This record gives sequence, C-alpha cells and structure tokens, in this order.
Amino acid sequence: MKSRLLTALLAVTALNVFAQDSLTLRHISDEIMLHGTCYDNLRVLCKKVGNRLSGSPQAVKAVKWGEKAMLEAGADKVWLQPVDVPHWVRGEEHLYVKAEGGRKTELSMLSIGNTEGTGGETWDAPIVMVKDLDEFNKLPADEIKDKIIFFDYHFKQDLIFTFEGYGDAVRYRWLAPNLAASKGAMAVIIRSVSTGEDDFPHTGAMRYFDTVKRHIPAVAIGNYSADWLVKKCKQGEVTAYLSAEAHMLPDMVRSYNVIGEIKGSQHPEKIVVVGGHLDSWDVGEGANDDGTGCVQSIEVIRTLKALGIRPKCTVRAVLFMNEENGLKGGLAYADSAKARNEEHIFALETDAGGFSPRGFGLDMNDKKKAQVLKYKNLFLPYGVYDFNRKEGGADISPLTKAGVPSAGLLPDPQRYFDLHHTDNDVFENVNHRELKLGAVAVTGLVYLISEHDLK
Amino acid sequence: MKSRLLTALLAVTALNVFAQDSLTLRHISDEIMLHGTCYDNLRVLCKKVGNRLSGSPQAVKAVKWGEKAMLEAGADKVWLQPVDVPHWVRGEEHLYVKAEGGRKTELSMLSIGNTEGTGGETWDAPIVMVKDLDEFNKLPADEIKDKIIFFDYHFKQDLIFTFEGYGDAVRYRWLAPNLAASKGAMAVIIRSVSTGEDDFPHTGAMRYFDTVKRHIPAVAIGNYSADWLVKKCKQGEVTAYLSAEAHMLPDMVRSYNVIGEIKGSQHPEKIVVVGGHLDSWDVGEGANDDGTGCVQSIEVIRTLKALGIRPKCTVRAVLFMNEENGLKGGLAYADSAKARNEEHIFALETDAGGFSPRGFGLDMNDKKKAQVLKYKNLFLPYGVYDFNRKEGGADISPLTKAGVPSAGLLPDPQRYFDLHHTDNDVFENVNHRELKLGAVAVTGLVYLISEHDLK
Repeated sequence: MKSRLLTALLAVTALNVFAQDSLTLRHISDEIMLHGTCYDNLRVLCKKVGNRLSGSPQAVKAVKWGEKAMLEAGADKVWLQPVDVPHWVRGEEHLYVKAEGGRKTELSMLSIGNTEGTGGETWDAPIVMVKDLDEFNKLPADEIKDKIIFFDYHFKQDLIFTFEGYGDAVRYRWLAPNLAASKGAMAVIIRSVSTGEDDFPHTGAMRYFDTVKRHIPAVAIGNYSADWLVKKCKQGEVTAYLSAEAHMLPDMVRSYNVIGEIKGSQHPEKIVVVGGHLDSWDVGEGANDDGTGCVQSIEVIRTLKALGIRPKCTVRAVLFMNEENGLKGGLAYADSAKARNEEHIFALETDAGGFSPRGFGLDMNDKKKAQVLKYKNLFLPYGVYDFNRKEGGADISPLTKAGVPSAGLLPDPQRYFDLHHTDNDVFENVNHRELKLGAVAVTGLVYLISEHDLK
Repeated sequence: MKSRLLTALLAVTALNVFAQDSLTLRHISDEIMLHGTCYDNLRVLCKKVGNRLSGSPQAVKAVKWGEKAMLEAGADKVWLQPVDVPHWVRGEEHLYVKAEGGRKTELSMLSIGNTEGTGGETWDAPIVMVKDLDEFNKLPADEIKDKIIFFDYHFKQDLIFTFEGYGDAVRYRWLAPNLAASKGAMAVIIRSVSTGEDDFPHTGAMRYFDTVKRHIPAVAIGNYSADWLVKKCKQGEVTAYLSAEAHMLPDMVRSYNVIGEIKGSQHPEKIVVVGGHLDSWDVGEGANDDGTGCVQSIEVIRTLKALGIRPKCTVRAVLFMNEENGLKGGLAYADSAKARNEEHIFALETDAGGFSPRGFGLDMNDKKKAQVLKYKNLFLPYGVYDFNRKEGGADISPLTKAGVPSAGLLPDPQRYFDLHHTDNDVFENVNHRELKLGAVAVTGLVYLISEHDLK
C-alpha cells in the first residue's frame, strides 16, 4: 500500500508539474503572439542591415544590431565573442549562352560561394551537359577538358522532408567544381540546389579540395534558366560566356558572435544555449536564413524577462557568425566553452526558416531523449508534433561533437529551399504568425529544460 | 489455439492492408509531387479567370475553366449542375476621414459583401468608436443615431488555431450592421476580420436581418488604417465621408456546380465526394479561397486516373458555386442527392487554403471516426497528424446535416486570415509544394475511404 500511495503521489506531482508547465507554455505563447518583438526585429535586420556575408561591412552593422537587440530584450549580460572569419566577395558576374544560329542570352546566375571567378575576364567554351555524377564519370577526359560542364541534377521534389532532398542535391554544389577541375574543365554550371518553381539562382558554399590544383569558377543558374538551357543543349552545341569577379580575400577579418544571457537562479553554472546565425549570403536579406533564427533566439530572452521567469539554469542566446562559409563562430563558441570548462546541458539551434514549427530534431542519448519526449504533448497545442528526427544545427555541431545534447527546431520545410541563398529570401517571405509560433516553440523547450535540467 | 491463429492471421492481414495502403499513398504522393497539375491549374484560374463572384461574368468563365480542367484530369463523366445564385456588385467606393484641424485622408476599405452602399452619394457623419459589442450595447441610442459607428474589435492573435479567432471576430461582420441600424446609425465601419500585419481590408459576407428595416452601408478597413483611426478618434472628433455603390441586383443568375466523377468498380452506387468552391470574392484572385480547394479536388481525379487506380466506390469531385454569399451550390448539390436518392458515404471539403496539410477535421459518428483514425499513421510521413477537430466545410454542410460523414482538410492555419477576402489572395501567395502536399492528403483520404468504405 505504501508503494501504491507513493506511486499515486508521484503521479499527482507529475501531473501538477505538467499542468504547471502547460500553463507556463500558454503564458509564453500569449506573450509572444500578442507582444512579441521578433517580427519587428526581423524587419530592422532585413531592411536596415540587409544581407551580411562574413567579413562584409553589413556584417559589422549586424553585430551592432544584434548587441542592441539583445540589450533591449533585457539580457542580464551581453557580450561579443571574437571570431576571425573569411571574407569572400562576389563582384560583377554574368553568364551568357549562345546556341548555334541563336543570339547571346543572359541566364539568371550566381557564383557559388567561396569560388574563384574568371578574374573579371570573359571565358568562353562549349557546354557539356550531364544529368548527374554517373554520367559525368563516364565521360572521357578529352570531352571535359577546356569545356564548361553543366550539371543538370534536379532536387528530388518527391521527398516530403525537403532537407533530405537538399542533402542529396547539395553534393553537386560541393563536388562538381572539384571533380570537373580534376578532369581539366574550364568552369562549372549547376542547376541551383532549389525546389523553386521560378528562376532565382541559389548561391551557397563550396570548398576547393586540397588535392585539386586548379580553382575553377562555378556558378548556379535558376531552375527556369536550367530548363531552357537543357532544351538548347539537346538541340545542338551551346557556347557559354562566363565572367565573374568572385574571389576570396587573403586576410581573415575580425568579427564576433553576439551573446546575451540570463543567469540561472539555482544552477547558474549549467547553461542552456539557443541560437541562430547572424551572417547570411550576400543576396536577398538573409530573412529565413537565418534572420528568423536570430530574432527567435533573442525572443527567448525577451519573453522570459517579460514574464518575470527567472530560469533555474542559465539561458544563453547566441547569434553565431560565419555559419554560411566557414563555421568559425560555432567553432569559436565551442572552443571558448571548453577553455572555460563551461557546463552546457543543452544546445538548440533554429536555422531552418521562420515557418510554422512542426517539431524538434533531437541529437542526444536515449535517456535524455525520453525526457524530452515527455514534453511532447505540451507542444501539441502549438502544432509541434514531430520529435522523431535526429537533427541539430551547424553552429551547435561543435558542441554536439563535444557531447552536448542538441536539438534543432523543425519548421514546416516546404518553402525553405525555394528561398534560401537567393535574392528572394526577404522579409516579405516571412509570415509574422509563423515566425512568432516558432519563437513560442523554441522558448518553450528552452524553458522546460532550464526548469527541469536534462539528465 | 484456433482463435489465436485467427487473431494472428487477421493481424497479418491487417498489417498487409496497411502496408499496401502505405505504398499506394506513396505512389499518390510521388505522382502529385512530381507530375501534379494543380499548381498550373491554379495559375490559369487565378491569372486567366481571376476573381469570380457569383453571378459575375468571371464566374461564367470559371465554370468553363472547371469543366475543361475536369475533362483534362480524365474524369469518366463531367457535368454542370444548375444553381441559381445572387449577384451582388461592389462598384466604386471610398472612405475618407477628417479629424478636427486635419485634412481628409482616404482609408483602405472594402464594402462588406451583400451590403447596400450609399447609392454612390457621399454620406458624412461623426464617427463613434466602440471596442466591442459590450461597449456598443451600453451606448444610449442618441449617441448612435445618424452616426457612423466604428467597431474596433481585434482578431484574437493569441489563438493558435486561427479559425477560432475567425469565429470570434467574424460576428462583428455579420452583426454590427444589423445592430447599428436598429439603433439608428447611418453606417458602420469595422476593423477587418484579419490577422494581417498590413493594411489590406477584408470583405466577406453579411446578411441583413429580416427584423431590421434599414439596410445601412457597412465597410471594413485595413488593420493599419484601423490603428490610425483609433489614434485619431482618441484625440478628438473625427468625421467620416463614405461613398459606396454596392448593391444586390434584383434577379438571381443561373450558374452551375461543376462535377467530375470516376465510377466505382465495385460499389458504383456509393459516392465519395471531395470539393472546394469555385466562386470567390470580387477582390484578389480567390487563390487560397478557394482556388486551391478546386484544383486539389480536380487533382484527386487526375491522380487516380494517372496511377490507373479504379476506386471501388464512386469518387466525385465537385466545384461548388456560391459558397461566399449564399451557399446555393452546396444546397443544390444536397437537394439533388436527396432527390436522386444517392448514397453518399463520405464528403470531404478543402476550403482553408493551399498551405501545408496538418490534419483532417472529422464530423461523423464515433465508429466511423475510429475507422478514419486507424489511417492516421499512414498520413504522418506527409506531415498530417491532427485528427482531433470537428470540422467539415460550408459547401458540404447540407450533406452533413443530412447525415453524411464529413471531413475538412486542415492546412496550416497561420496565413489564411492574412489573405482571404483581400486583394492579396493571389496565386503568388500559394506555394507549389504546399499546395501539392495538400492534394496528396486529400487524395489519400478519398482513396482510403473509396477502397475500404466507411462503415
């Protein structure tokens, strides 16, 4: 009987805990949906700072914006963490193509990030089109040498979770310039890594392999341009005329992660981190990638403060620098955490767009996962139901590697790869309610773990 | 032992059924995500037909478009079902306001649907602002008489399921003109029934009560205009100058529901209906309300045909006419079903926008609900998880009343009330992948019920 009574008491206590948590989540939701500032913050970041590639003058402005926004949110302490970042610049760039008997037509293109261009000169060569790596690998070297290779690989639209399609197609952005260079190609064109029913080209990172001597130019073209080019290539020889000034500057640039913190009331030494990345590509406004993650992270601080919630563990919001083309911010943060012997009990990243939240990817051991899964029903009223994926985030991946339990917000993934890394990733393509609802989910999970620890 | 064996056999059979269904849903999904025509259909409907209020010339064009699209989808049989609909016209309309000492400022407005305007004359009167019905009811009649009443009731942004907020706020659109008229007001202005962070005014239906003698004009203003007007009203007297030509034409107009059907292979007499409504308000392009529901319903037919699936029960796609301001199409369909003694085993409506599907609302008895809930896991890979709401659709509500088990697609509800009934409800505000994924969900449920019946 005693044990039954104990079980019953524990059950009642557990119910009360959940009832209290449920109520707190409702307060968090009401606060954000009615008084949230994340949407206004995003407007300022997008419209007053704009895009902000690492090393650029706008990235300097973004750091100042982040520091100010973090202070306005009411963080106990705000500081800048030094990070040395690469500085790549795009410059002027054009891609014209000419089919036999046709006229020169300009295509919608962007140099892929981190690439070297043509030094501003115009290089021309016949286009060799391949549909994938298999077809490319079968080509004899003399059909590749001095040619411009067009990889017409399509994003797999049948994959419902678009991040799977991205993981598949993005190989072409990373690999194609290296593979083509090693076979003597002059340059590379890829169909953008994009779900878009449009002609926006998508930039994004690549890295020249150490083993590849020649750093050839590589550009991505919009889906409609790619469709058109496929048609022309099937009809006969097509010549490409590429000029691109893209290049990596020789020196690293001093930049910063922006950090804001609320000290924990009971376990100040235990840290819960939530973050997004402050840098973006040099096109559009970096709205969904990842302005939304930044303003949601700041909203966590603002909301806890506004509701007078003093978290038991320390809650830290981090705007990481240089996720897009170096990850230097994420690495610097993890290095600093290690050097200071900080105890991070949980890291959460929001870097998948400002769309309606649907779940959290969990990257942690089974025991901790079981604890988080107990909170699942608390999130259902906010449309957050999917806790089955293993997903963290790039910026927190150095922490994850160091053993910190990690998670990533999973917003609805249908629109992200239409927009990200394009001129179309602008404030207008973020919905105020969806953005705020994401902030509710993120704040809720941060609150629960700072309240109950993650054991 | 026998019974155990039987149980085991039944379990295996059940598993096989689910495995087969799961595979078929995957085929449906692949077909729609890779080859779906719903997005292209929507482009034509929005850009070539445009908005299409019942009785308007564009509604005639829309019927022709629907008939053609249904035939192209491969329906065994396509027909038009006659419906007599009201014909309301908006005409020219303006609302200016003038604060003491200020200048006349034009506000962003739309007459509420079905209202009578000012006959094109300009009526002016002081504005009396109230925040809700309580405040209005407390006003003495002499403070209302000959005034223009401004109902500044806000859409409750803290309600996550926006249809709840709509249900709450839309009372003002229906009631305010009647209540104000009965107390002698000259006209009514309401804050739009809108979640929008913008200045788009939202039209939508109202109906003059039979008990109310004077049919006074009623207009909705955009949220930003409303914010501005509130400020001015708090500062002092504000005069409104309203001109509106809106009026209901005396005669009903012959129009049609568009119906396409695939005959059932085993139970042709049992009918599964899926539909949306073809008419829209006379602003924007009626994209999410409800072009998306129409093209998704047509996609059901196309997909079953493309995959060579001959459903066991008859599957019928219906584009209902006149949902927005009369429901004559839904009533005519149900009347016809009754007159012909048709056996409808299930009715599904998609009229909540072309956003990512999240669930189905179910309006049926518990036994049937239990059967549908068995399919829940089949839909999880497509992000459809919420089967807990009771929701059908306006067009199928006459069928529901007649006892037909009903359901409504529940897309993500965050953006719908930013857009619907506005100039901003255009093709560009529908995402191709979200629209198609909704079609996958709808086709999946129609398939399952046509395959297994609903007992």
